[in-house]
Amino acid sequence: MNQKIGSKGKPDDTSAYNRRGFLKRGASLVAGAASAGLAQGATAPNLAGQSWERAYGAGFTGYGQPSRFEQPVQRHIARPYGDLAPGSGAALSPIERLEGVITPSSLHNDRSHSGTPDIDPKQHQLLLHGLVARPLTFSVDALLRYPMTSRILFLECSGNSQRNLTPQPLQVPAGAIHGNIACSEWTGVPLRMLLEEVGLLSHAAWLLAEGADSAHMSRSIPIEKALDDALIALYQNGERLRPEQGYPVRLLLPGWEGNMNVKWLRRIKATDGPTYTKDETSKYTDLLPDGRALQFTFEMGVKSVITKPSATMTLTRPGFYEISGIAWSGAGRIRRVEVSSDGGTTWANAALHGEERPKALVRFRLPWEWTGQPAILQSRATDEKGQVQPARSEWVARYAPDNRFHNNSIVSWAVGGDGSVKNVYA
Amino acid sequence: MNQKIGSKGKPDDTSAYNRRGFLKRGASLVAGAASAGLAQGATAPNLAGQSWERAYGAGFTGYGQPSRFEQPVQRHIARPYGDLAPGSGAALSPIERLEGVITPSSLHNDRSHSGTPDIDPKQHQLLLHGLVARPLTFSVDALLRYPMTSRILFLECSGNSQRNLTPQPLQVPAGAIHGNIACSEWTGVPLRMLLEEVGLLSHAAWLLAEGADSAHMSRSIPIEKALDDALIALYQNGERLRPEQGYPVRLLLPGWEGNMNVKWLRRIKATDGPTYTKDETSKYTDLLPDGRALQFTFEMGVKSVITKPSATMTLTRPGFYEISGIAWSGAGRIRRVEVSSDGGTTWANAALHGEERPKALVRFRLPWEWTGQPAILQSRATDEKGQVQPARSEWVARYAPDNRFHNNSIVSWAVGGDGSVKNVYA
Repeated sequence: MNQKIGSKGKPDDTSAYNRRGFLKRGASLVAGAASAGLAQGATAPNLAGQSWERAYGAGFTGYGQPSRFEQPVQRHIARPYGDLAPGSGAALSPIERLEGVITPSSLHNDRSHSGTPDIDPKQHQLLLHGLVARPLTFSVDALLRYPMTSRILFLECSGNSQRNLTPQPLQVPAGAIHGNIACSEWTGVPLRMLLEEVGLLSHAAWLLAEGADSAHMSRSIPIEKALDDALIALYQNGERLRPEQGYPVRLLLPGWEGNMNVKWLRRIKATDGPTYTKDETSKYTDLLPDGRALQFTFEMGVKSVITKPSATMTLTRPGFYEISGIAWSGAGRIRRVEVSSDGGTTWANAALHGEERPKALVRFRLPWEWTGQPAILQSRATDEKGQVQPARSEWVARYAPDNRFHNNSIVSWAVGGDGSVKNVYA
Repeated sequence: MNQKIGSKGKPDDTSAYNRRGFLKRGASLVAGAASAGLAQGATAPNLAGQSWERAYGAGFTGYGQPSRFEQPVQRHIARPYGDLAPGSGAALSPIERLEGVITPSSLHNDRSHSGTPDIDPKQHQLLLHGLVARPLTFSVDALLRYPMTSRILFLECSGNSQRNLTPQPLQVPAGAIHGNIACSEWTGVPLRMLLEEVGLLSHAAWLLAEGADSAHMSRSIPIEKALDDALIALYQNGERLRPEQGYPVRLLLPGWEGNMNVKWLRRIKATDGPTYTKDETSKYTDLLPDGRALQFTFEMGVKSVITKPSATMTLTRPGFYEISGIAWSGAGRIRRVEVSSDGGTTWANAALHGEERPKALVRFRLPWEWTGQPAILQSRATDEKGQVQPARSEWVARYAPDNRFHNNSIVSWAVGGDGSVKNVYA
């Protein structure tokens, strides 16, 4: 309350409140802007008022919706089989239109194999069976009475960014390529607790988790993860799960590839080994150059993407811009995000928001002065395990040409002399 | 990944993953429950499948919505003037149906004086003038180019819980009394930065902030707060503000009473003293027993409320229940939430989620064994400044009988022998 304008920024997140401190901090990409200078200049006050100031406003609503002026902000829908299988594919989050780290549930990424089932929570049950002392079924009402815990966590489909492996870079919004990622506050019952209820037998080493969609999407999960931080999620961002994210109950495996977080969860079976379901043998393996494949790459790699500016945007004139983006790692916390405006020759540390939370999206921001010359913007994340996001060329060399999962390589946006922003492979 | 079932819980939030540890922790209200025992018992696996497992699911949507089975979860609308002024009143968050600490924007509390204006962001402008060197207008597009910061913050109307001052306690859901509170991740431009742009004069000591609603709702704000942590908010929970929360731009004063966080912000004027607007003289003052009134109680007091179980709910049978609720303080972080099941005779510390964030909602949880006997549930929050939530009798004695703002007193729910939960003044 007693700070003065121009006082020195503190070296933590709150220093962003003081732009001078923010701009001065270490390795800003701003040459020397003392002012962003984005205001329209001195003008006479317009106190006459707009039309909406002279009309009584709309009444209250029970469940609010976005402004009609924000209707274009929608998920990017990819349906590889078209009308033959309209619910098979993905709806990607429009990350280029979002800020902060919480994704509104309405815009959360949605990967589905046979569409979204319309589940009556009074009829739905979760069965725990297999290598257990007491197989049990849990109604949703029963699950709601168990002790709960809440965590802010990212969810990324392992096929995210596969559209950045096309021969030529696609010129579409960032979310249409890299938006199979989102972040919510999830609340639910620790899976460990339910496994205690059924009495896991000593030779139970894996679980099979199965959804109630018509594809019965199912995956095998090591028991160690189930006993560590797995959640039986019932709430997302405060309210009950949305149908597209697994209503009324889904599995949540913090930091692990999206489709293992089985939606519409109806069954968990304790087994002595992986089940090798269709969903983990036909997909989600990493093809190698020598013809072999890596199976069970569960943990999502360290990754980041600049969302602003990004492909299809245009910088209207030289001057100040804030570079903003998201970073995450399945291994834990993000320790650092570096940003380059010269295609990776030099790097500057970005300011981070939310970096105290493991396995959650982090927002990074860096002030940048665009001089009007061509530039190539990149971001590179490092996590608390010391893992560094790989260059695209490095990642591509590691796998077979047709591998399309777990692409966590560095993303490059080229700013042209005309201010246009394009997707490039740099 | 290598923990075993039944290993001792750690003394942090993650220990909630181990219910045994959770239940054992210090001052649980559970007598000795080793198992919540809420499952339906051993049953034959029902693998035949429900109807939705045999039908191809719904296709993708651009902007998702809740399940049709969750339609009853709506804000509680209070319109004191009825159809005469349908947008004057409040829509309270259904806190009794929510979990975690993030409130979905659709269910965020909404206090409005003359309804929600339908603002075209291309036409809207923010004017900064008064005791400044360079009066400036900012278009929304210009604001969107400034450096931003994100914070998770609560917003509480200072009239929240005034419905718990009726002669007889109301028997309505918790949110209909105490739901003029919500919590979002807000992203925007530090107000300090814009004040630097206009060059605040040395004798500027207050600001007048005015909304573009037809009431031109306006409040006076000390300059110290504006230079501390005030935000010009543009995004809420990742997406652009909702109309009901101030689209396209609102003021955010972390921890301060709700209506100072002026929605649809169109004007900030630097002044040498408070403006004493109609909105801060006709309302929001605290009447004292001696006939005087406290003016400018900006910071919201330390407070908590149990949301589960709460009034109008019914405990179906004796046994395990998790007591869950929300706590907050305008002064900073929540340090402790205690829970009593005997009307305040004995207290136990609840587990906290989100307590690292100042001026944000914190979720508290405590396991509880209901024996079938009558009980009175209460929660009592303490913040990092050592302020303790007052007893209802203590709070009532402090003010005149018709005072109705800043009620942060302890809330009591009575559980009857029949399992019914009622609102009581204890």
